[in-house]
Amino acid sequence: MTRLALGIEYAGSGYSGWQRQHHADSVQARLEQAVAAIARHPVEVVAAGRTDAGVHACAQVVHFDTPVARPGRAWVRGVNSHLPPDIGVRWVAWPGDDFDARRSGLSRSYRYLLMDSPLRPVLLRNRVGWTWKPLDEERMQAAAGHLIGEHDFSSFRAAACQAHHPVRRIQTLRVARHDGVIAFDITANAFLHHMVRNIVGTLMAVGAGEKPGDWVASVLAARDRRRAGMTAPAQGLYLQGVGYPERFGLPEPPPGPVFACVQTGG
Amino acid sequence: MTRLALGIEYAGSGYSGWQRQHHADSVQARLEQAVAAIARHPVEVVAAGRTDAGVHACAQVVHFDTPVARPGRAWVRGVNSHLPPDIGVRWVAWPGDDFDARRSGLSRSYRYLLMDSPLRPVLLRNRVGWTWKPLDEERMQAAAGHLIGEHDFSSFRAAACQAHHPVRRIQTLRVARHDGVIAFDITANAFLHHMVRNIVGTLMAVGAGEKPGDWVASVLAARDRRRAGMTAPAQGLYLQGVGYPERFGLPEPPPGPVFACVQTGG
Repeated sequence: MTRLALGIEYAGSGYSGWQRQHHADSVQARLEQAVAAIARHPVEVVAAGRTDAGVHACAQVVHFDTPVARPGRAWVRGVNSHLPPDIGVRWVAWPGDDFDARRSGLSRSYRYLLMDSPLRPVLLRNRVGWTWKPLDEERMQAAAGHLIGEHDFSSFRAAACQAHHPVRRIQTLRVARHDGVIAFDITANAFLHHMVRNIVGTLMAVGAGEKPGDWVASVLAARDRRRAGMTAPAQGLYLQGVGYPERFGLPEPPPGPVFACVQTGG
Repeated sequence: MTRLALGIEYAGSGYSGWQRQHHADSVQARLEQAVAAIARHPVEVVAAGRTDAGVHACAQVVHFDTPVARPGRAWVRGVNSHLPPDIGVRWVAWPGDDFDARRSGLSRSYRYLLMDSPLRPVLLRNRVGWTWKPLDEERMQAAAGHLIGEHDFSSFRAAACQAHHPVRRIQTLRVARHDGVIAFDITANAFLHHMVRNIVGTLMAVGAGEKPGDWVASVLAARDRRRAGMTAPAQGLYLQGVGYPERFGLPEPPPGPVFACVQTGG
């Protein structure tokens, strides 16, 4: 048996989420069917992050084991020919038998895209979150500083979260406006369930001027989900990359789409 | 009767095109139904540009006449509540009875977004054209210079084009890369059928190194559609704005989405 790793891009809008389920269409099931068609045996894949319904991925990473040897193009172009157009393999690698897409991951990076405009998005629907409230990205960036570092993130954890403990370490959290779209880029060693979306929802209350910036520190200290802001909607969230030890030799994650607006002039 | 103008954004992927047709779903029919629901009488709208199947609009402009008086929010938010999520009204204006969305237009601006990458787009599918060939945007920008100005564009005209004569004046044609996506921005007094897509397809042959830059000049001079390149696919094309005389007081078109990629770093 040989262990293979694949980099996967997908639009989550049409799926019940990453994880295989009875009676629901999942990214995992579609990928396993497509890989099996090339491997010619049933395949189970393990993913770095189990994204929720509607959440996208620029660079999900999975591994699986197979006894068959195929050239790289079979695992990329071949598998792609069996996938629907909203899922695609971007690369294949042979990282060695001790690689585990989930457990070997040192960090995960997510991007959240949020449009603040009086009218709902049209061309960007299903690709960005949306609020009609004008948001101040500098206020949000300043407030985000309270969350950097190792903390008990119970206040930002979904009730259904199955993690053993609520302590995580946020390495970076940047808030930047690209014309009408605000990008939240957040990297941590790992995330609790709904943690990114709850952080974005909490920062939105600060950005809208409804809460002061240091409210975020008191929410964090409370360790109580009822204290934080709303859960930002799934369609703005992208799994942007997974950090692994260099020895596995995996490709760098690509820059993610930001759907920025660039003035045409003319 | 009062004449109203509306600014419209839409994703063309789900429609047979702008124009109302029997037995096919069109943007025009959806908009007319939604406006009629607010006006409470049948409405026929006239558009600045009749986009093809799959083509998008950031800023289509239409006009219609109505005897009823409604506040602006009824014509924007009210009409939006009757539209599907891939069509939206962005603004309303009262430009006066001599305004005609099509005939008053002094210029039209289109943007074409093209991804050149070895693998098909996933998150950007239906929003960009795609070629696996690496393209040189500077070669394309240089070759585009042959098309600026007033010319007979018969070589770039679809067989089905119904225009009376083939002379058009291109004011600007800019080619710029935004990471993995190349944006072609083109403004002219008016366009022949498929003219933008045929120009992009012709510049692609230059960008791929298959043709020299001055081949574009010989294609133009030939006045023969068989000489030009392929018709670039519809899903990369956006009606970006329509220029009108200032006296009508219409809003400026918004910056269009470019779906640029911005490195996350971190």
